Amino acid sequence: MSIDILCQKIRETKNPSVAGLDPKLDFVPGDITARHIAAKGETLEAAADALYEFNRGLCDALSGIVPAVKLQSAYYEMYGPEGVAAFKKTVDYARAAGFYVMADVKRNDIGSTAEAYASAYLGSVTVGRTVIEPFGADSATVNPYLGTDGLKPFIDACAEGGKSIFVLVKTSNPSSFELQELIAGDRPVYRVMASLVERWGQGLIGASGYSEVGAVVGATHPAQLRELRELYPSVFFLVPGYGAQGGGAEDAAFAFRRDGSGAVINSSRGIMCAYKKTGGDFKDAARQEALRMKEDIRLALC
Amino acid sequence: MSIDILCQKIRETKNPSVAGLDPKLDFVPGDITARHIAAKGETLEAAADALYEFNRGLCDALSGIVPAVKLQSAYYEMYGPEGVAAFKKTVDYARAAGFYVMADVKRNDIGSTAEAYASAYLGSVTVGRTVIEPFGADSATVNPYLGTDGLKPFIDACAEGGKSIFVLVKTSNPSSFELQELIAGDRPVYRVMASLVERWGQGLIGASGYSEVGAVVGATHPAQLRELRELYPSVFFLVPGYGAQGGGAEDAAFAFRRDGSGAVINSSRGIMCAYKKTGGDFKDAARQEALRMKEDIRLALC
Repeated sequence: MSIDILCQKIRETKNPSVAGLDPKLDFVPGDITARHIAAKGETLEAAADALYEFNRGLCDALSGIVPAVKLQSAYYEMYGPEGVAAFKKTVDYARAAGFYVMADVKRNDIGSTAEAYASAYLGSVTVGRTVIEPFGADSATVNPYLGTDGLKPFIDACAEGGKSIFVLVKTSNPSSFELQELIAGDRPVYRVMASLVERWGQGLIGASGYSEVGAVVGATHPAQLRELRELYPSVFFLVPGYGAQGGGAEDAAFAFRRDGSGAVINSSRGIMCAYKKTGGDFKDAARQEALRMKEDIRLALC
Repeated sequence: MSIDILCQKIRETKNPSVAGLDPKLDFVPGDITARHIAAKGETLEAAADALYEFNRGLCDALSGIVPAVKLQSAYYEMYGPEGVAAFKKTVDYARAAGFYVMADVKRNDIGSTAEAYASAYLGSVTVGRTVIEPFGADSATVNPYLGTDGLKPFIDACAEGGKSIFVLVKTSNPSSFELQELIAGDRPVYRVMASLVERWGQGLIGASGYSEVGAVVGATHPAQLRELRELYPSVFFLVPGYGAQGGGAEDAAFAFRRDGSGAVINSSRGIMCAYKKTGGDFKDAARQEALRMKEDIRLALC
């Protein structure tokens, strides 16, 4: 089971965190960008090469310390097809380096189209007789606005291909209340979604006790994190919102069971841009920040 | 205003329909695919070249008949970065051919990330001092699960760049009731969303009387189409679900005001795959089907 592999990597590194690789050019050290612009001009290709070099450095720096990386697709798509190629190369590099690789794509569509998305990120396509994995991630994030039939192809990919997904339940942003906290009957929408997530994951529970169908719940909503953790013990949480978005380790701590399992906490800008605060090499700064975060979470879980 | 341009193209062609360019290899005539595989092997590049050739043929066939094309991103992403490059080339080709081009990407994320998505599809990025439009579509579809701050960058792109967006309100798929028809207070979630869409579009209403912030409402839900059309006269509708998904012209007709304006009806497989029913050239078959659909809608609006 894919979720078991994530749990195992978390145990090996003793670190329930995930490093976000969301590398827009503003975040990339200027000398890297300048070198690629010198080679290929002020083009999307140069930008994409700069992102990929930055990502390789981050992967090298975080290997053995952080169990997983999460690629926010928006920051690649903003550099066009060339940026998307850097996304794919980063997935391959990170998987080869031993990371559990999460494609943060928040895709969603009607059944037949959701099938195409599931093939893209978690499955394969056939050209002639050749089977190709277009992106080949371990896991993807999915938006549930369309309901079960839009999720089913992703769930099938979990069942068939040893993959996991994380469904948006309670997102970390300030406006998330507008829809997600509407009261439907006796409970808010995010709880309706969480109960669907639990149902979708039945039959896909691994040795770790968690299912391949996880939930995204923001560290900026500690009360909801606690509530959902108690209600849905088999649902693994991907927790954004730590650090730059304002969530602290004590908030994120509500995502875990008492045994310290059940969640990964994401940090993107905090790790990627650590060098902007400390000066010096971006790789050293990222590693130090990842270690500080690991300790921050460990203390909050004591 | 971008929505005014769409309205004008609809008036010029007397055809409120949009052709979906959702070209997975199963839909592409076998001789096209075979030729590109012969040239580049059983690769994603060959697949992408086949998609692009098919799309060019469809654009040529539909030019002057259909005012808009909609590219479903999933069918390009499933062929990896090479497929995404075919998406971009198709956007450029279709715009040059005079179509209004809709990127059906259903993107959504927290504010800072939604900004990256808005830049990707509707705006621009800067590399060095060079400003580049990564995909350069006229319009994009957006998922509202995250609420206003996740929408704002797209709305800003509408205000600044003469673009439009279509927000998922009531989608065409069978499970759409699970979340979208939950009763929140005195009304279903899809109506809460529709009222947000109306609010987001205030100040962005063009000479046509419609705002740059439109709504996606499926032809498979005629009662809701009628209800929303009456409640939100300034909201333009993108209507999927006609044809292959089961919606008829009489259902889709509820999307229009009495003057026949206010919506575009999408057909993807019906047009793309028309040649599979009729035999013969795929371009001729697509053109005939587009003309049949135009007449079908015209009669339903009489």
